[in-house]
Amino acid sequence: MNFNSFMPPQRTLMGPGPSDVSARVLSALARPTIGHLDPAFVGMMDEIKVLLQKAFITKNAFTIALSAPGSAGMEACFVNLVTAEDTVVVCRNGVFGGRMIENVERLGAKCIIVDSPWGRAVEAEKLEAVLKKHPEAKFVAFVHAETSTGALSDAETLCKIAKAYDCLTIVDAVTSLGGVELRVDDWQIDAVYSGSQKCLSCVPGISPVSFSEKAVEVIKNRSTPVPSWFLDQSLVMNYWSGEGKRSYHHTAPVNSLYALHEALLILNNEGLSQSWQRHKTQHEQLALGLEQLGLKFVVPENERLPQLNTVYIPDGVDDAKVRSYLLNEYNLEIGAGLGAFAGKAWRIGLMGYAARSENVALCLVALKSAIAKFST
Amino acid sequence: MNFNSFMPPQRTLMGPGPSDVSARVLSALARPTIGHLDPAFVGMMDEIKVLLQKAFITKNAFTIALSAPGSAGMEACFVNLVTAEDTVVVCRNGVFGGRMIENVERLGAKCIIVDSPWGRAVEAEKLEAVLKKHPEAKFVAFVHAETSTGALSDAETLCKIAKAYDCLTIVDAVTSLGGVELRVDDWQIDAVYSGSQKCLSCVPGISPVSFSEKAVEVIKNRSTPVPSWFLDQSLVMNYWSGEGKRSYHHTAPVNSLYALHEALLILNNEGLSQSWQRHKTQHEQLALGLEQLGLKFVVPENERLPQLNTVYIPDGVDDAKVRSYLLNEYNLEIGAGLGAFAGKAWRIGLMGYAARSENVALCLVALKSAIAKFST
Repeated sequence: MNFNSFMPPQRTLMGPGPSDVSARVLSALARPTIGHLDPAFVGMMDEIKVLLQKAFITKNAFTIALSAPGSAGMEACFVNLVTAEDTVVVCRNGVFGGRMIENVERLGAKCIIVDSPWGRAVEAEKLEAVLKKHPEAKFVAFVHAETSTGALSDAETLCKIAKAYDCLTIVDAVTSLGGVELRVDDWQIDAVYSGSQKCLSCVPGISPVSFSEKAVEVIKNRSTPVPSWFLDQSLVMNYWSGEGKRSYHHTAPVNSLYALHEALLILNNEGLSQSWQRHKTQHEQLALGLEQLGLKFVVPENERLPQLNTVYIPDGVDDAKVRSYLLNEYNLEIGAGLGAFAGKAWRIGLMGYAARSENVALCLVALKSAIAKFST
Repeated sequence: MNFNSFMPPQRTLMGPGPSDVSARVLSALARPTIGHLDPAFVGMMDEIKVLLQKAFITKNAFTIALSAPGSAGMEACFVNLVTAEDTVVVCRNGVFGGRMIENVERLGAKCIIVDSPWGRAVEAEKLEAVLKKHPEAKFVAFVHAETSTGALSDAETLCKIAKAYDCLTIVDAVTSLGGVELRVDDWQIDAVYSGSQKCLSCVPGISPVSFSEKAVEVIKNRSTPVPSWFLDQSLVMNYWSGEGKRSYHHTAPVNSLYALHEALLILNNEGLSQSWQRHKTQHEQLALGLEQLGLKFVVPENERLPQLNTVYIPDGVDDAKVRSYLLNEYNLEIGAGLGAFAGKAWRIGLMGYAARSENVALCLVALKSAIAKFST
């Protein structure tokens, strides 16, 4: 076997993530590696904490970037907060709600599932009915922006209901952070995790997480150790604390954090609400064009994620051939369906740096040509 | 608070890791991000597997790069193989052996500890004595190259003893891979993990792991699910399998894997034994110079890691001031002591790309100047 340096093609990334990463972020990524205990690096970690607080709109002191992908961020929230004695209500309306259930079950905790249809928001009244029947519930968990379907749930209302029943809230904001309104403090979210590779348009591999004071108390008052050493946030806290007494836990992914810092800086400079608005504007342009191509959205208009557009594959159109053609002919990646939507839908991302007019234009032209070519 | 792009200083990294990353690897890191399911990316993942097999000297089909740091690689080995019913013998001669114990205990398994002095290799006869007394032991775990002390253990002999008592072997090769002889198949290692940021001189954040057929069988025959979803290697296997049927698990850290691919290519081009020899040669140069400065090694000569040189801080020399001076005046990072050696020793790394004559020369000159300046 002969090996050569890997030269990736230059793609336009309009799938469910990773999203387009700007040259500015890639250039930050490639700056010289320094030690993770270097004072210069520690100062940058402190800035990342502040920039993440701004992005999450939270004052939570425990707001950090976990050194692993979003699925590890999810697991960190569950393994630190939930013990085998607890009852967790998980709302499921797609693949990632299902993954939350996996997490709860592996902890040996009791899981009560609130199912809503795939492609729709989580139904608040169903959650309330379940909480009424289960006063033992200690946590409510749901996905804010379901990456498998493109549905946006009303996180504010769901958290309000959870709080009325004295539950702590665990929210998946992997695809929502930076792309749609998300207010961790105002909405009373106790544990939230996201991913670097969606609307932050950073390289994949990092998971921003934030825990409320109440959540931190729960972690501190555990009677059993967190089953995972790597994800034990009581140890990670001391690694990320800015008090000048940082204690070694693991080696942070130095260069990926350079990139995250730069991506957060870009978001901060644009402004959060401006970023939300840009995603909305580009989505409207794309939706108009997709409808002109005769494509039907999976999600009703008022529950749609602007940053992830899921449309049914028209009858007689060859899914795999269309996606290959887009990739090979236009260097354009769109996403396949996932879970219940595998083979039935496309997922077109407009995340972060990818939410630009030129991407929308390319996608519409390329998709039109592909559909015409591969229809029977 | 005002935020600017982070411009790291250009350091020479001669601590316990991260080690110097070459411009070639940084440039690979910054190539355009593509999708983790892109056929071009999948092809590169397959090459990483082959290059890792060569680096580990193994035919293990299950040889991959885990999407998280070495400490997650450690945890992956333990959580996948060990259940609460098992007995694990852990050899401890430094911080990272202690961390293995943490892992075993959090799983609720029985842990039998074989302690050897810090700064020395693991004592094979002690392991054998313990195994004689404990026929219930199912696993033997130890650290090949103790990053906290600079001691190299005789992995071949330790594994031979473990096998004589019918145990599976779990080996920490975080600091050894690429720097000293390591033969996963010949030495009968069943589970091994390493880190990207040591002798591979890649950016931190990735953990190469490899499981023998026997280990894979143990994973497949588990009666309880792996407690961690993220680290469940039965799921990760399907993500890394080259059969064209890869199933989605998480989003791989795309750019970091570009860098790992390039770093492994560099190692492959140099040749494994040439790399071991280079580490040895540079170590000999450094050791000579350190002795001329009057510094005493912690570890006896025949148990020393060439890639991590631990020397006692001379009486009357101010540890913190010396390290700050090296950093600020020479942009040179050396490591502080860890655990039992905190404040008592320096750890001078010669890992991967850092094992070069110019680094040795700089270190000796700078250290001489610093010691003279901060002695009482």
